[in-house]
Amino acid sequence: MTVESDESFGDVTPDAARRLLLGAVEAFAERGFHATTTRDIAGRAGMSPAALYIHYKTKEELLHQISRVGHESSVRVLEEATSGDRTAAERLASAVRAFTRWHAEHHTTARVVQYELAALSEPHLAEIVTLRRRSEEILRGVLRDGTETGEFAVTDLRGTTLAMMSLCIDVARWFSPDGRKSPDELGVLYAELALRMAGHAPSEVTSSSG
Amino acid sequence: MTVESDESFGDVTPDAARRLLLGAVEAFAERGFHATTTRDIAGRAGMSPAALYIHYKTKEELLHQISRVGHESSVRVLEEATSGDRTAAERLASAVRAFTRWHAEHHTTARVVQYELAALSEPHLAEIVTLRRRSEEILRGVLRDGTETGEFAVTDLRGTTLAMMSLCIDVARWFSPDGRKSPDELGVLYAELALRMAGHAPSEVTSSSG
Repeated sequence: MTVESDESFGDVTPDAARRLLLGAVEAFAERGFHATTTRDIAGRAGMSPAALYIHYKTKEELLHQISRVGHESSVRVLEEATSGDRTAAERLASAVRAFTRWHAEHHTTARVVQYELAALSEPHLAEIVTLRRRSEEILRGVLRDGTETGEFAVTDLRGTTLAMMSLCIDVARWFSPDGRKSPDELGVLYAELALRMAGHAPSEVTSSSG
Repeated sequence: MTVESDESFGDVTPDAARRLLLGAVEAFAERGFHATTTRDIAGRAGMSPAALYIHYKTKEELLHQISRVGHESSVRVLEEATSGDRTAAERLASAVRAFTRWHAEHHTTARVVQYELAALSEPHLAEIVTLRRRSEEILRGVLRDGTETGEFAVTDLRGTTLAMMSLCIDVARWFSPDGRKSPDELGVLYAELALRMAGHAPSEVTSSSG
């Protein structure tokens, strides 16, 4: 198991702290949070347990940092993908494409973040839940806009939002770089499926005029 | 964490073997496969490690049995939901509704089964992969039928099948019995979303005649 890219943790400094996060993601993904020791993480980062302790006091602190950076990164992706003066359909397609691609590209980190939530301390979990709500709000806002403009036909706004989030997030569970689709190809398919889920029917306008 | 129901393992005999499977699901869900000991599993089943050993030689054997019974049960659910002389749309709706409900009702077992696949031995994993392919084939068959009859407009048969499976399976990750929707209510919503993903447009027939 290799961590797919350093990109998620690229902003983390110093370099030793970043390497420890990568080691922790790798270890948590392979063995699970509870079966991983800080010694194991330090070893993967080529460091001693004492050196790890300078940067992170506990294993939970590492998990918290991974979850925070991961969630902040995916929220940013959604914000960027939904900005600008475009139709709701365009924003939905670009949001789902980018969110799907993110979960494919960062599948190992995303898996750890999703599967080990229960291992976070209560205050840390609360912080992460706030970030997750933010993602949900962004997507729900786009679906609401499109429903108001008549672009979409969404009957269950909350349920449809959660289903779309879930569809994109679950990519992290099964995605493999050896699979048939690249992260972006998968994003394109999922954007089309999301438009369908939203009841977006681009052809209706023209067909009803005929 | 409690295991939601004994139903998945209801057919397992003797009673001690069934209790061990339930204890193992509970422990794996809480701590992960690698952090769980057979002593822990035996304790949860109210038994000694020696008594566990009579039924299962290794922790992996318990995981294999959980995965096998879980996958066989969800394949059966799909087979039953797609049988009979009905339209593809009816069969798709009933398949997605039942498969979603199964993953909500058995969310703890389903989580263990999905997240711990990598801990199975190679021959056991191969057996499980065969069962997973069977689920996929059932759903793909319904989508293919509907595309041939013109009920559906599926452009990427394989990708759409995998997306629908993924949507239903991911219910196990986030479903909570304290949430807003019951397993069946969620199944009804997801059946509707799946029909949309398949490009099923029931209103088109009537609207084009107007």
